[in-house]
Amino acid sequence: MKEITRTPVVILNFKTYLESTGEKALNLAKFSEEVANETGINIIVVPQHADLLRVSNEVKIPVFAQHVDAVEAGGHTGSVLLESVKMAGASGTLLNHSEYRMKLADIQKTVEMSYNYEMVSVMCTNNIETSIASATLQPNFVAIEPPELIGSGIPVSQAEPEIVEDTVDAIHKINTKIGVLCGAGISTADDMQAALDLGSDGVLLASGIILADDPKKALFNLVSKI
Amino acid sequence: MKEITRTPVVILNFKTYLESTGEKALNLAKFSEEVANETGINIIVVPQHADLLRVSNEVKIPVFAQHVDAVEAGGHTGSVLLESVKMAGASGTLLNHSEYRMKLADIQKTVEMSYNYEMVSVMCTNNIETSIASATLQPNFVAIEPPELIGSGIPVSQAEPEIVEDTVDAIHKINTKIGVLCGAGISTADDMQAALDLGSDGVLLASGIILADDPKKALFNLVSKI
Amino acid sequence: MKEITRTPVVILNFKTYLESTGEKALNLAKFSEEVANETGINIIVVPQHADLLRVSNEVKIPVFAQHVDAVEAGGHTGSVLLESVKMAGASGTLLNHSEYRMKLADIQKTVEMSYNYEMVSVMCTNNIETSIASATLQPNFVAIEPPELIGSGIPVSQAEPEIVEDTVDAIHKINTKIGVLCGAGISTADDMQAALDLGSDGVLLASGIILADDPKKALFNLVSKI
Amino acid sequence: MKEITRTPVVILNFKTYLESTGEKALNLAKFSEEVANETGINIIVVPQHADLLRVSNEVKIPVFAQHVDAVEAGGHTGSVLLESVKMAGASGTLLNHSEYRMKLADIQKTVEMSYNYEMVSVMCTNNIETSIASATLQPNFVAIEPPELIGSGIPVSQAEPEIVEDTVDAIHKINTKIGVLCGAGISTADDMQAALDLGSDGVLLASGIILADDPKKALFNLVSKI
Repeated sequence: MKEITRTPVVILNFKTYLESTGEKALNLAKFSEEVANETGINIIVVPQHADLLRVSNEVKIPVFAQHVDAVEAGGHTGSVLLESVKMAGASGTLLNHSEYRMKLADIQKTVEMSYNYEMVSVMCTNNIETSIASATLQPNFVAIEPPELIGSGIPVSQAEPEIVEDTVDAIHKINTKIGVLCGAGISTADDMQAALDLGSDGVLLASGIILADDPKKALFNLVSKI
Repeated sequence: MKEITRTPVVILNFKTYLESTGEKALNLAKFSEEVANETGINIIVVPQHADLLRVSNEVKIPVFAQHVDAVEAGGHTGSVLLESVKMAGASGTLLNHSEYRMKLADIQKTVEMSYNYEMVSVMCTNNIETSIASATLQPNFVAIEPPELIGSGIPVSQAEPEIVEDTVDAIHKINTKIGVLCGAGISTADDMQAALDLGSDGVLLASGIILADDPKKALFNLVSKI
Repeated sequence: MKEITRTPVVILNFKTYLESTGEKALNLAKFSEEVANETGINIIVVPQHADLLRVSNEVKIPVFAQHVDAVEAGGHTGSVLLESVKMAGASGTLLNHSEYRMKLADIQKTVEMSYNYEMVSVMCTNNIETSIASATLQPNFVAIEPPELIGSGIPVSQAEPEIVEDTVDAIHKINTKIGVLCGAGISTADDMQAALDLGSDGVLLASGIILADDPKKALFNLVSKI
Repeated sequence: MKEITRTPVVILNFKTYLESTGEKALNLAKFSEEVANETGINIIVVPQHADLLRVSNEVKIPVFAQHVDAVEAGGHTGSVLLESVKMAGASGTLLNHSEYRMKLADIQKTVEMSYNYEMVSVMCTNNIETSIASATLQPNFVAIEPPELIGSGIPVSQAEPEIVEDTVDAIHKINTKIGVLCGAGISTADDMQAALDLGSDGVLLASGIILADDPKKALFNLVSKI
């Protein structure tokens, strides 16, 4: 549940941008840690699988995986085993990201596996209906990202505030301990503030910071009004 | 082409066994290096994505990835970017493993990307027909693994020697520089020897070593008659 | 909701058996209609896409599709458009069958599309957790099929009766109008009776009838104790 | 091989447009037959799975499926069994369409199954490399469709004539009996003529006809200069 993660929270998804791969992933994680330390905000970084160890070895803020597969240890060449990302330093994982939609049966299994391995699960969803369905599976967080706003620069917290409010309400009817994150188009301090005002516990974002002219400054700005 | 990799070659696929994840991946890689150094055989280790850096930082033998996705840098959360595994120390990658079959268009794209990034590509195939089709895409290696023999303990080099010979012939008609590997049921020195006698350039194997009572001894035995 | 379909209901999935393809699909549907007429039981037949028209043209019992894709009219070569199966006579569809698991986002979309097109939606699930998640999406039916029992000949209604009861309870807490079906290992009158006694509204079955020595007799037997 | 299908050939893919679903699929097929009869051109129609029987019952021109799955008869709910589309009147099938890319292993299997069932196989490809790989699998036709031109209205035969010529050459080096089709952006008589002049055996097209103001007229025009 969200209580295992301090809120408000900023989850920074590194995606597969070159700007956040390899050494650049490490740099991004290091200044995310600086911002976290200076502001007291809980910032979580989410590098690619191959960068998890590099990042988790060098920073003390939480490091999450971008995805884990619904497989158990065995013959699954190429798949992402939950144990492998945990051993590489991940303390949580995104699931069902809009760029990696999962089957319902696999979502349920990976949430259960995450719980069993004491990993934080952040389930991404595309609308209120799938957010409610996801919440019944008891992930720690649901991050709602209306697909039409992803990468648009238009924050869901401003474009469709009622979606955020309604999702928060609906999820909390199922379990008040499930955190709700806003996850599309967020990049400014106002977006962040609006997300919190609508009842969410934080944001999931990527390009708004990673592709900014000055990512560190963008991240500082993001959390400057909290 | 295969000339960029010394043959005969033994490619040890770590799959997602717990016996080859995290610290155990590193141990496995270290004694693989010892065997390689003592015997002079070219042994390549293939850990999971999250273990690539851990392994490549500590051993000097080649480290390959188990898979890369046909994506370019950008918004592909959860996917495996070729650049990310290269920066984590991989100098090659398996593609189209029987446990991770790929679309033809993606196979072509990842072989081309591997070539452009100077990564060795090892294409797994299930029969002669797909081996020939794969060879036209000019990977460095084709590893043929008849699905009925995978994990069977029955080596393809003994059960279906004509498949190996015919595949070697067919692939060399396309390009003599493409290496051919035997990849199912291999575990003993006789299997290895038979594979080479049939004209292949080495083997791709996993459980025969990794799940052996004494993996290091099993690996020594494997290459003892070459 | 289930009230649009008379219960108890027997849904006969033709799968892709040759015994239920082409003319044989039609024969199977015709005697299913005979059994329905003689016994008064609501029997629904579920042939392959290419057999829908053949069957729906000749029988008056309901005909469902085995799957529809989450696509809207347009450029989706090879996909199964809901409108196409409806125009071919289907008045409902299975979704997320264990042999065709779907992504959560696609499940939600196809249930919504089914509702908009007045098609009955039958969501297949593998355990209580996914049944609850599915029920929040408001399909007409949820058919629970524990994967370990599918094709086993061991009926879920006898092997794991508490799963059926608990699923019925959990789903009815969400919406009492959602029907619950038992769907694994069902083949006899006792299985059917047990399914109803546990609170379900009927059964989803396939091989128990289709691969029986005398399918018509097997179907008569199935509903003989209701 | 292509000799089993008279060339030049026009393959009209109905996709999942509403304009080519249900009764409209039948209308489209009927006037395609009229144009074929009046002009002597070999026109093949490719409706959705659920429309195959409706169309094949009413027209004498060849009817192809849009896709078949690499499954054999058995428990594959929702999949498209080759036998089912054949029994519904299909005498051939598209494979690996850009909107339904297939795994290499499945492509090989479905081409082999098509051959065994005397179905014409039309393999769609995206570039020269995948066209060559596909040709080694010995389908009857390879239809090259550069993805950037699909639905663009810019014909591959004019935008990238060298791709068509090079593909024809490369495929004929493998087997002169494999037909080559042009498949992106084709809609006019000039496009068609250019395709044939470049050495192809015909065209695969969809929106250029189906979404035309007057599809019948558009189809007449298309073949008017051959």
